[in-house]
Amino acid sequence: MSSSPPGPPVPSLPSEVAVVNVGLSLFADAIAAQGRPVADVDWRIPAGGDPEAVAALRRLYGPRATAIDEANAEVVRRLDTGVPLLIGLAPAADVVPGLGERTILHCGPPIAWADVCDPLRRSIRAAVMAEGWAADPDEAGALVEKGEVTLEPANHHDTVLPMASAVGPSAWMWIVENRDGGTRAFSAINQGPGEVPWFGRETPAAVERLRFLREVAGPLLNEAVGAAVAAGGPIDVFAVAAQGLQMGDDVHMRTQASTNLLIRTLLPHLLALESPARVELGRFLAGNHLFFLNVAMAAARSLIAWARDVDGSSIVVGMARNGTTFGVRLPGSDEWHLAPSPPVGHALYYSGQGPETSAPDIGDSALLELVGLGGPAAAGSPAVAGFVGGTMADAIKLTRDMDQICAGRSSRFKLALLDFRGTPIAVDVRRVVETGITPRINTGILHVSDGSGQVGAGVAVAPVECFRTALLALDRKLSS
Amino acid sequence: MSSSPPGPPVPSLPSEVAVVNVGLSLFADAIAAQGRPVADVDWRIPAGGDPEAVAALRRLYGPRATAIDEANAEVVRRLDTGVPLLIGLAPAADVVPGLGERTILHCGPPIAWADVCDPLRRSIRAAVMAEGWAADPDEAGALVEKGEVTLEPANHHDTVLPMASAVGPSAWMWIVENRDGGTRAFSAINQGPGEVPWFGRETPAAVERLRFLREVAGPLLNEAVGAAVAAGGPIDVFAVAAQGLQMGDDVHMRTQASTNLLIRTLLPHLLALESPARVELGRFLAGNHLFFLNVAMAAARSLIAWARDVDGSSIVVGMARNGTTFGVRLPGSDEWHLAPSPPVGHALYYSGQGPETSAPDIGDSALLELVGLGGPAAAGSPAVAGFVGGTMADAIKLTRDMDQICAGRSSRFKLALLDFRGTPIAVDVRRVVETGITPRINTGILHVSDGSGQVGAGVAVAPVECFRTALLALDRKLSS
Repeated sequence: MSSSPPGPPVPSLPSEVAVVNVGLSLFADAIAAQGRPVADVDWRIPAGGDPEAVAALRRLYGPRATAIDEANAEVVRRLDTGVPLLIGLAPAADVVPGLGERTILHCGPPIAWADVCDPLRRSIRAAVMAEGWAADPDEAGALVEKGEVTLEPANHHDTVLPMASAVGPSAWMWIVENRDGGTRAFSAINQGPGEVPWFGRETPAAVERLRFLREVAGPLLNEAVGAAVAAGGPIDVFAVAAQGLQMGDDVHMRTQASTNLLIRTLLPHLLALESPARVELGRFLAGNHLFFLNVAMAAARSLIAWARDVDGSSIVVGMARNGTTFGVRLPGSDEWHLAPSPPVGHALYYSGQGPETSAPDIGDSALLELVGLGGPAAAGSPAVAGFVGGTMADAIKLTRDMDQICAGRSSRFKLALLDFRGTPIAVDVRRVVETGITPRINTGILHVSDGSGQVGAGVAVAPVECFRTALLALDRKLSS
Repeated sequence: MSSSPPGPPVPSLPSEVAVVNVGLSLFADAIAAQGRPVADVDWRIPAGGDPEAVAALRRLYGPRATAIDEANAEVVRRLDTGVPLLIGLAPAADVVPGLGERTILHCGPPIAWADVCDPLRRSIRAAVMAEGWAADPDEAGALVEKGEVTLEPANHHDTVLPMASAVGPSAWMWIVENRDGGTRAFSAINQGPGEVPWFGRETPAAVERLRFLREVAGPLLNEAVGAAVAAGGPIDVFAVAAQGLQMGDDVHMRTQASTNLLIRTLLPHLLALESPARVELGRFLAGNHLFFLNVAMAAARSLIAWARDVDGSSIVVGMARNGTTFGVRLPGSDEWHLAPSPPVGHALYYSGQGPETSAPDIGDSALLELVGLGGPAAAGSPAVAGFVGGTMADAIKLTRDMDQICAGRSSRFKLALLDFRGTPIAVDVRRVVETGITPRINTGILHVSDGSGQVGAGVAVAPVECFRTALLALDRKLSS
């Protein structure tokens, strides 16, 4: 055996190993499993290596980046600082701009009757019946078929409708004003649980619910909101939502806390109603924990309407599904970029239901995910955690996914779990295409075909194709 | 230089250092600051080395441990599984057992008028005036002074009262039943914010609030609760509290969510009230986010009443303050173990207020901390985090402190941040004395002397002396 020579120490394996892993996390997982520290850099080939998208990204992140970033900053400012104020309700015919006489507004991008999915088809027929234009579903369907009733996307009339909602001119609408931006937006009164058209039902009870909303809920709520506004000024919808977020709402899938806050604000004015029908309204409100959803949607739409004016921005300012197509819009354009509506994943189903009985993702409520509510707010909601793995760590992961594709953070929607930082807002189409991460949308699920209503809820992952189309359109526009 | 000999490898310093630190965490902090792993075992000399307490602990953890642990398990079962049901309201004179005609019930342990602190003194005088026994504060005080009005601790009549509350026989009380245990408990209607006796005020407006509660709120709430009970059965108070906890309430310092849930449950029945005074009730409810506090307290008291029967247990089944003394009770005994009421720490003050203008800790609400609400539930409440350091990590620390002195965990009050484990319940007097950690109580703070009402809120740390006295009494009792 030889002894070691004197001199500099013999190089040896380091006593500690630390690793930076780039790319496939499988390697990182293996190292972490051996108990060593590892920083996992989740690098993927941008845009999945798609040459057309990569070329567009090179331009949109390169020479055009400064102009785009400036436009985006203005969109972030509008989405973050605009103050949507609830001022009252009125029949759609009286307030919704450009609404024709025999028109039904529906959720999602434009669609031909032949392509409408089963739950929305039923909801549209229910709305036609509630208007008194037809006595039964067949007759209602025939009117639409023959073009005697016109279908219009609600979004084309500053209106947003959740799930499979469809409404006619007599439906009462929430009116929300964004005074800084000079914009207004509308949403119908949430129809509540059970046998209701927005869940794809067209039974007599479902049609009756639309009549109740028109005859009882609309006028009485307007009286109460009017009194509240007279007493304390218009209601700051996003201030209510911000409180709700501190109370476990994501303000999309769950609006329990925000609903209760709004009801307590209205309470003295509800109790001041003289009509005995107030008791019926009370039963409806007590049983509807998604009552605030539509108010939040109208509020979001009033800010989106303002942001849509900022030409040259890469921030998504429209995201809606009709159960057949999923569409996004960019500022300065009326164009919808479409992809097939995806299934809803991370779902919890009612007994006996599953993916095979589920309709694809549907409704305008996905616009909430553009303003920092829903998926971006997951880290604030134990209820959402139940859908994405069960722990708050899972919910935080969902928020962090949204961080990667968003251009800003809300200054009003705060996450207690993340030391009160704001929720991600303003989805940048460049980041979506670059990373392949698309918005996560917390949503309900309807039966695909039998008109039995809701079958579950879950988190939908937006399809990347429509974002890619939007990116290419932006690139073409800025290159021309 | 000599070369190394062949043979076994030369012992050397380990390439990695990991440390288990026992005792003062300063050492651990220093090691952690050097980036090395450290497990900090927070060991202290038990009972601070107090020989009498150490000897008692040796017996209560030694030969008597099995019997005590069995009794404690039964107390945990009662506190955890009892179902407090809200059944209605009635005037104290009609339902509170053993209540004399000219008696005022007050918060906290028994106390002589001469020792009553300023805010409680004012509140008692306001209650005497509201009963119509005196026309002004001086006259009211003289009646008590002369013994023409009797002071009784509410706790001696199955009743609990928050902050500086005091009530006479005409005050309407919440009635909560624990049917498994055959116990009932009571609390007054929460007086709301502003110029109110429970905050130590005795102005005409404060007295008027007591009259409003008696003439308007009590009867109308009873009508609404009665209708709700008739329609859906008694209201499970802790089911509401459990939901509230998922919505950011600690259900002590903050009851916003639970209040709103209860109001929405009552909504149809409130709207069915025919009395035009319902509007006044509506204004009161809309402005009172601590409305649920007293209901939760009566519910907790109904379980405590059941747990008090379990002789030989070391679980605290009474914890109350009158602003002068802080008292605890153990099962199988009516004895109060007292210490001076402590100041409230971790406080946030209204402008111009501070420790020098603050009365000591006051009210019966500390019993919530025995059943898993308040301090033990801090990890569920962003609002509480604001008082103890600002982050949810600080709030979690508070819950973990309570873990160290509690014998069980709630199966209904779940903490989303801690993967939905239950809040700590059932404070074991042995652990309190052993560790020196006392219950943390989330509470409001009143002005010490000028009758101006609330000056802030914070987290009170219970004084260890009364737990020590209770421990020694238990040891004596079990040794005799």
